[in-house]
This record gives sequence, C-alpha cells and structure tokens, in this order.
Amino acid sequence: MTSTSATPSPSGEPGKTAAKAPAKDPWELPDVSGLVVGVLGGTGDQGRGLAHRFARAGQRVIIGSRSQERARSAAEELGDGVEGAENADCASRSDVVIVAVPWEGHAKTLESLRDELAGKLVVDCVNPLGFDKKGAYALTPEEGSAAQQAAALLPESRVTAAFHHLSAVLLQDPEIDRIDTDVMVLGESRADTDVVQALAGRIAGMRGVFAGRLRNAHQVESLVANLVSVNRRYKAHAGLRVTDV
Amino acid sequence: MTSTSATPSPSGEPGKTAAKAPAKDPWELPDVSGLVVGVLGGTGDQGRGLAHRFARAGQRVIIGSRSQERARSAAEELGDGVEGAENADCASRSDVVIVAVPWEGHAKTLESLRDELAGKLVVDCVNPLGFDKKGAYALTPEEGSAAQQAAALLPESRVTAAFHHLSAVLLQDPEIDRIDTDVMVLGESRADTDVVQALAGRIAGMRGVFAGRLRNAHQVESLVANLVSVNRRYKAHAGLRVTDV
Repeated sequence: MTSTSATPSPSGEPGKTAAKAPAKDPWELPDVSGLVVGVLGGTGDQGRGLAHRFARAGQRVIIGSRSQERARSAAEELGDGVEGAENADCASRSDVVIVAVPWEGHAKTLESLRDELAGKLVVDCVNPLGFDKKGAYALTPEEGSAAQQAAALLPESRVTAAFHHLSAVLLQDPEIDRIDTDVMVLGESRADTDVVQALAGRIAGMRGVFAGRLRNAHQVESLVANLVSVNRRYKAHAGLRVTDV
Repeated sequence: MTSTSATPSPSGEPGKTAAKAPAKDPWELPDVSGLVVGVLGGTGDQGRGLAHRFARAGQRVIIGSRSQERARSAAEELGDGVEGAENADCASRSDVVIVAVPWEGHAKTLESLRDELAGKLVVDCVNPLGFDKKGAYALTPEEGSAAQQAAALLPESRVTAAFHHLSAVLLQDPEIDRIDTDVMVLGESRADTDVVQALAGRIAGMRGVFAGRLRNAHQVESLVANLVSVNRRYKAHAGLRVTDV
C-alpha cells in the first residue's frame, strides 16, 4: 500500500512500537458472560440475527423496539430466553446496547434515549448506505460516520462500533452453527473495545479484532457497499477475515 | 448489517438476481501470463514489492520512476528479468500499469502521463492517508477516492483499483513464498476487472475478488488506516480474506 508519508505503513508500524515496554496481550479479554445485551432495532433482520446468536451463546438478551408488543412477539419467536421491551426499557436494563436500527432512524432514536444510554457501553453497527440501479453506495454522515454521530449524540455513553460485516441471513438461520468471520471493533477506550471483542468472541466462529478509533469508522461501515457487490457477483453471504492476526 | 432500505442487504442481494439468466462463472478469468506489467512508483516499497511478486510469478515487469537511473538500479536489485525505465517509457511499453506512487504525487504523475496511459489498463493502488499522534486516518480526495481521481485525470484509460491491503514488508521479503490474502478489485468494466483479478491470482496465495465500482473505492483505500491500527495492536502485517466466496 502507498500512503502519504515515506513510512512504509501499515507494514512499518509493528517495528515502530517494538522498542516500547511489552504491551498487554491483545487477546486477553474480559469475561462478559454475565452482561445483559440489549439490541435496539431488535425486530429488524440484523437485530434479530444478533439477538439469536448472543442468546444461543448463553448471553442474556433484551430486544428493543418502538412497540413493546412487536418486541415481545419477536422475542417469543427467537426463544432462548430472549426478552422484548420498548427501546427505553431495553436501554436502561442492559449493560451493553447494540444499535441496529435503520440509518434513517439512527439520530432520532439515539437522541430520544440519551438518558437511558448514559453510562452504558453502546455498540453501533449501522451502515449508512444508499441504493440505486448500480447497487449500493456509501452515504457520508455529517459527523463522519454513524458511530461518530452516535458519539456526538450520546456524550455520556461509551460509544464503540462493531458487527458491520455480518450477513443477517446467516445470523438468523438456526441451522447454521458457526459463522466464520472476524468482527472489526472500533472505539476510543481499550476497556470498552475489549468488552466488545469479548462479546463477538462469544458467538461460535467469530473473533473480535480491534480495528482503530471512531474516526476510522466510516470506511468500515461503508465497506458493506462493497460486500453487496461481492454478494451479487458471487451469490454469496460475504464476510471478512483479517489475516496474520 | 443495517442499511437504509428495508432490504436485508448485502444478504438479500443474491436472491434478487437469482431469477435472471445464469451469470457467467465469476472465476472464469482470462489468461494474463503474456501481459507486460508496468509499475509506476516502482522504486517505492509497495511498487518494488509488487514488481517482485509479479516477476516471480513469471510476468514481464517494467518498473517506472522519475529517474531512469533509479528505476534501473532498483530493477537490477530485484532481478527475475525486471526492467527499469522512466515513468513515461514504462507506461507506453506496458499493457497493464499499476499506479503505486505516493498520494502527494498521484495527480501530478498521472496528468503528466495522460498520453502514454491512453488505452491502457490502469490499476490504482494508492491509499490517501494522513498520520498524526493517534495513528493513521483517511483523507478524502475531491473526486471521492484516488481511483476516481485517476479516472477523472485519465479519460482515455481503463481505470481500476486493486492491491490496497497488501503489506509491503511481506511483498518484498524473498523468503516468503505465499501471501495468503484476497485482493479487492474495483472497476466499471467487467473485462477490465477480470484481467486485474487474474493478475492478482498469478501471485502465490492471492486471489482477486470483484468488490464493486469505482464509486465504492474510497472505503477500500481508507481501510488501510484500520489495518495500521490492527498492525500496531497485534504486531502483525494484516491483510484481508473475503469469506463465503
């Protein structure tokens, strides 16, 4: 890869840090099995899929929706102890809150839940995309990315971004035992990204990989437009693995 | 993943096209063994690395530089029949021209080679990145991406984008026989992206995967900022594999 500086990065980076004190093992992640996972937009395909995977992994899961009734009926269908609640209730009762709402409702939903999400670990997995005859393309939120919009709207929450590149079809298919893919996790605080990585690792086949700060979330969100093209060309449900890690 | 429409894409996409006439096998790629590969910026780390890999795979390779002397001395070091030439000479004598110049010189170099690159298949692999204390971050070219800038500056060339996520360290290391990674290939014409995919497939361990049109190049270029973070955290030379493909 060719970049702005003379530094042959990213390849040059490991050498740069090698002289420093030994870093903490990046695979030493906390035990998150006791955390309650809330999923806003939990009645949508992506939300239902994630709820199914986390519940199946033994995590306590609450799916949120604008309508309590819809949330409860979706939860009942999912089984595995998944609960359904109104978004505000889901947010206040959960330790980690995954934001899986459609991009159109993203800002409005988060604004309305500012109090309930205060102090919570928020995981944004929204991909702002447009679609036309030529396929999908990236939209650029004013804040830079959906995750940065969330961080701007939720100053008292700990905002991270993850779970962008998963196929909702695979997530929701109960016949599929493993989903072999990596989950890129972005955030500003290592304690928070470690928790999200550990959560990703609870799902069979998945691995959470730290992939930078929120200012680099846009390209991770937008890459879904490329996966749409991959899926069309190869009739696949494409995901990503990070190699050499 | 959650997107703008109700369509559960990218997962929903395969189903959409399933009703159409059977598509051409996406892995049926042309024989490119006879093509001459030019590498502009061939004396830089990325350029030298790609030249080494293509020459090793049996491809005829010409590396280009502003200085004929520097190009020739780099070519001699590389061996395997690699030639060195001034950029203009490299461009006119090659069938496929890889652009591996630093982002700062990108527009100027391409503008100056418009005539030599007319009719050629151009493969842009430049990642516009900035670096500061917090690491790497994406720059956004006025045209949307380096590849779109190339397409705007070279209206008579066939512009594609590929080879963004490769570690220059691994590419250049003669002890490494295989580089197990996928190469995302973007472009407007299937004939062109097929050639670039086939070229990627000439390198041991690599596979060229079609990943969309040039309007979706920015996120592919920018993702290198995330790989820089991955490399720092895990002391790795990260690359990417596309799963389920």
